[in-house]
Amino acid sequence: MSFIQNDWYVAAWPHEVTDKPMARRLGNQPVVLYREQSGRAVALLDRCPHRGAPLSLGEVTAQGIQCNYHGLVFGDDGKCRVVPGQERIPAKNCVKSFPLVEKDGFLWIWLGDASKADPSMIVDYPYHNDAKTWPRKCGMMRVKGHYMLMIDNLMDLTHIGYMHKNTIGSGPADEYVNAIMNSERTARGAKFTRWLLDHTPPATYVAAGGFKGKVDRWQEFEFIAPGNVLMYTGGKDAGTGAYDRNEREGGIQLRVFHALTPETDTTCFYFYSTMTGYKQDDPNTSQLYHDAIVRTFKEDADFIEGQQERLSEMPNPQIDTIHDTVRVYVRRHYDSRMNDEAQERAGQGTSPAASVSPMEQA
Amino acid sequence: MSFIQNDWYVAAWPHEVTDKPMARRLGNQPVVLYREQSGRAVALLDRCPHRGAPLSLGEVTAQGIQCNYHGLVFGDDGKCRVVPGQERIPAKNCVKSFPLVEKDGFLWIWLGDASKADPSMIVDYPYHNDAKTWPRKCGMMRVKGHYMLMIDNLMDLTHIGYMHKNTIGSGPADEYVNAIMNSERTARGAKFTRWLLDHTPPATYVAAGGFKGKVDRWQEFEFIAPGNVLMYTGGKDAGTGAYDRNEREGGIQLRVFHALTPETDTTCFYFYSTMTGYKQDDPNTSQLYHDAIVRTFKEDADFIEGQQERLSEMPNPQIDTIHDTVRVYVRRHYDSRMNDEAQERAGQGTSPAASVSPMEQA
Amino acid sequence: MSFIQNDWYVAAWPHEVTDKPMARRLGNQPVVLYREQSGRAVALLDRCPHRGAPLSLGEVTAQGIQCNYHGLVFGDDGKCRVVPGQERIPAKNCVKSFPLVEKDGFLWIWLGDASKADPSMIVDYPYHNDAKTWPRKCGMMRVKGHYMLMIDNLMDLTHIGYMHKNTIGSGPADEYVNAIMNSERTARGAKFTRWLLDHTPPATYVAAGGFKGKVDRWQEFEFIAPGNVLMYTGGKDAGTGAYDRNEREGGIQLRVFHALTPETDTTCFYFYSTMTGYKQDDPNTSQLYHDAIVRTFKEDADFIEGQQERLSEMPNPQIDTIHDTVRVYVRRHYDSRMNDEAQERAGQGTSPAASVSPMEQA
Repeated sequence: MSFIQNDWYVAAWPHEVTDKPMARRLGNQPVVLYREQSGRAVALLDRCPHRGAPLSLGEVTAQGIQCNYHGLVFGDDGKCRVVPGQERIPAKNCVKSFPLVEKDGFLWIWLGDASKADPSMIVDYPYHNDAKTWPRKCGMMRVKGHYMLMIDNLMDLTHIGYMHKNTIGSGPADEYVNAIMNSERTARGAKFTRWLLDHTPPATYVAAGGFKGKVDRWQEFEFIAPGNVLMYTGGKDAGTGAYDRNEREGGIQLRVFHALTPETDTTCFYFYSTMTGYKQDDPNTSQLYHDAIVRTFKEDADFIEGQQERLSEMPNPQIDTIHDTVRVYVRRHYDSRMNDEAQERAGQGTSPAASVSPMEQA
Repeated sequence: MSFIQNDWYVAAWPHEVTDKPMARRLGNQPVVLYREQSGRAVALLDRCPHRGAPLSLGEVTAQGIQCNYHGLVFGDDGKCRVVPGQERIPAKNCVKSFPLVEKDGFLWIWLGDASKADPSMIVDYPYHNDAKTWPRKCGMMRVKGHYMLMIDNLMDLTHIGYMHKNTIGSGPADEYVNAIMNSERTARGAKFTRWLLDHTPPATYVAAGGFKGKVDRWQEFEFIAPGNVLMYTGGKDAGTGAYDRNEREGGIQLRVFHALTPETDTTCFYFYSTMTGYKQDDPNTSQLYHDAIVRTFKEDADFIEGQQERLSEMPNPQIDTIHDTVRVYVRRHYDSRMNDEAQERAGQGTSPAASVSPMEQA
Repeated sequence: MSFIQNDWYVAAWPHEVTDKPMARRLGNQPVVLYREQSGRAVALLDRCPHRGAPLSLGEVTAQGIQCNYHGLVFGDDGKCRVVPGQERIPAKNCVKSFPLVEKDGFLWIWLGDASKADPSMIVDYPYHNDAKTWPRKCGMMRVKGHYMLMIDNLMDLTHIGYMHKNTIGSGPADEYVNAIMNSERTARGAKFTRWLLDHTPPATYVAAGGFKGKVDRWQEFEFIAPGNVLMYTGGKDAGTGAYDRNEREGGIQLRVFHALTPETDTTCFYFYSTMTGYKQDDPNTSQLYHDAIVRTFKEDADFIEGQQERLSEMPNPQIDTIHDTVRVYVRRHYDSRMNDEAQERAGQGTSPAASVSPMEQA
């Protein structure tokens, strides 16, 4: 198992889950997501315990999700409620139910030991509930790489001037390398703030903010395990107080919630919501920024997929540079959590499938 | 080996096999099927013993099938008859020949020990020779599931009201669940008869039989190992003697021969011939019924493929319901035959490849 | 490792390699090929030692190839020359560099122990430097078969009358079988000369040479390890001295350089240059012959791919015929080289990955 088990991952955007069941592989398990007639979202293992057919080929009825092979119906707790023509239903006729919580515009799933599922661990994200200040667009892409490769990517922004030189990183690459950088470990990951002072704004910034000259630009990123990166970034005219007096208004302000969820050991889902904290009354603003971000993330995905191919074949060496500090913090947290879970399983005498991911060796 | 070896499977429809060699994987072996110039159909291992090229890339000559790599020719017994430019041909220069019998409109192949091939074991099917009473259409589809999953499907017809509610099972699902059911084990499998009395005919029945009201509908199915299901079904106006006086004329009568043949451990070929025992003079009747069956079988295939995916990953649990009685009979026959063959191989000191199918654990 | 390591293979045609990096798998390793700003062609392992990203997603700068993930730059020796923002670069921050030599219109790569790379081992091919006498066209196709299967193919030309009967082998197949054949082993492989006297010229010959009747046709082939076959062939009117007086002028003369390079254990690259030593002033001549050869090689590729499928599943038996003499010579050379390399590795205490190719068992 090459991912942290006992924590919350984004399973889907709420609008993706309807009364028409949807199959999605999450944490290497086939999951069916759907809404009961009450509107409540449910996640079950996508496998009928009768003959093994996918429940996602079924339909939602008043009593729960009906397998459309032989008509068995299951409740949100995974218990079988109907076997057509049969009175007694044995207790073992049930399917695994995953804790699923809808909060702040996300559907969060707990992939590990359900008895440990603690909704208070779910990240708060109030910006999703303030559409007036932070209008947003949501998206998702499937990336053929381990989810932590995407987290690694977000923890070292010196890549912007190289990988994204045609999108959000146009201008001298050195400015991204030489940013003022402050970082720290946190209880659930790490965070950093970077300042690019007297910085050449990339084309996307100029288009968004109408800047005439240099800007002061900030990049605040926080990784919160297991798969979340909260980003707050923006810029305003250079020397107008953003850096020294913390006066951030007057330019552009952006938030992105990055949520990475393992699909398999070598693929993941990348959920992102982009929020524009400026020109909130202009309906194009949000869309323009979202489109720029999607182009940027496709550049990331190309590299992550190439990287996964190489690491699957040749995991080592991986030689850090001085810019890997925060990435190393994050990996230490990940390794520590993975290690704790492995020890806990060992203590329970359960033996999970050995990892097939090269990432744990990294 | 996840299939019964020593028995006859349908290899192809006779019209599929011509003097142009055809490659088909049968029982996890590459087979070439073709007709000699005499018209006799032949099945050989599709691998030239010289350099391993597929014989199916070759052509039929007066002396047999010619490998079009270097011109070697093989007879229907698999012995090499020609090595261009070479006088003596060693006896070891031969290829495996499979017993192949053309009978009643099928080409039957024996995939196991050729010395045990007994043509008297081949199912008789006289309806194929009576086109006047039983005009027919033949078809085939490849299904990405173990062939026994398709047999399982045919042994529990309570699925009709759920899986096929848009085709042959429209109407209340309960009527399929609550049918009168009689079943029994047989020497080579199992059979059952179901009656749906005072039954809401599905749209396909109404279109075929012009029924104005309810019908009495019968479903007689017999599984004959290794992969055959003989189906006789039909209906007529309710209460007009079909059930209590065995008077079946006056409505519609249908026969389908279902033949399932393993391709690999997780895929199969589904051969079917559909026969309409009514309106034999109307050329559309046969086609209409065939088309309805094909739509229906695609619904089956979707489920079987989803089921195979799940069972390949998670073979257990599989919890039976009261409708699994005949399916269990059939699986007992299958398990018993598989066990006999395994013991026989063990006695011979041969060690076949271990099974990779989840089905044997089911 | 199912290929000879310590020798030169064609990596690419020179025109394929530019300042835009190109990824190509060679000898089961991911390689990036590019030209430095000086024009010199370079081959490195296509994997940045920092985070494992493909260097082929990068770009060529004045200092070398830049990884476009985080901007590291590597020289032609594989040493890291730039880590943006970092002064000291540890020696271990380097990537494997492959010896690469541009000679006679080929780019030759050494896939094995770089310390043994000896450019004097590279085949001389002066015809590539004499475009006036030998105008040429180059091509390449990827074949899903072990590269030695393609060499085998070229060592037994009795296949021409069967496999190529619709292209370069039209006419009686027997004429190809009964050719006068002289062969011998050489230090680095084997060679043979075949004469087809009073031979029915195939349609491609008639189109090229305008022959009215029979011809005398020669086929001179030399295999030079590890993957080269030098071919010189042609024909002129029968009985006009080609055979008995070695007067080859007056008809058509053709040269093909066949270079086979392993991509993986079951796939290869087939590089070919076709040269027409007649009607050198007619610009169509070269193209017509090249087109005929491409059609012919696709016929070969179909068989090799079918053969690989069968041999991957069933490596044995492979029963030689009398026409396998030269093929056996070549395989002995190959086996001997493979054996020497295996012993050498054993002596060094290195344990390479076990072979997965069926070819070594052949």
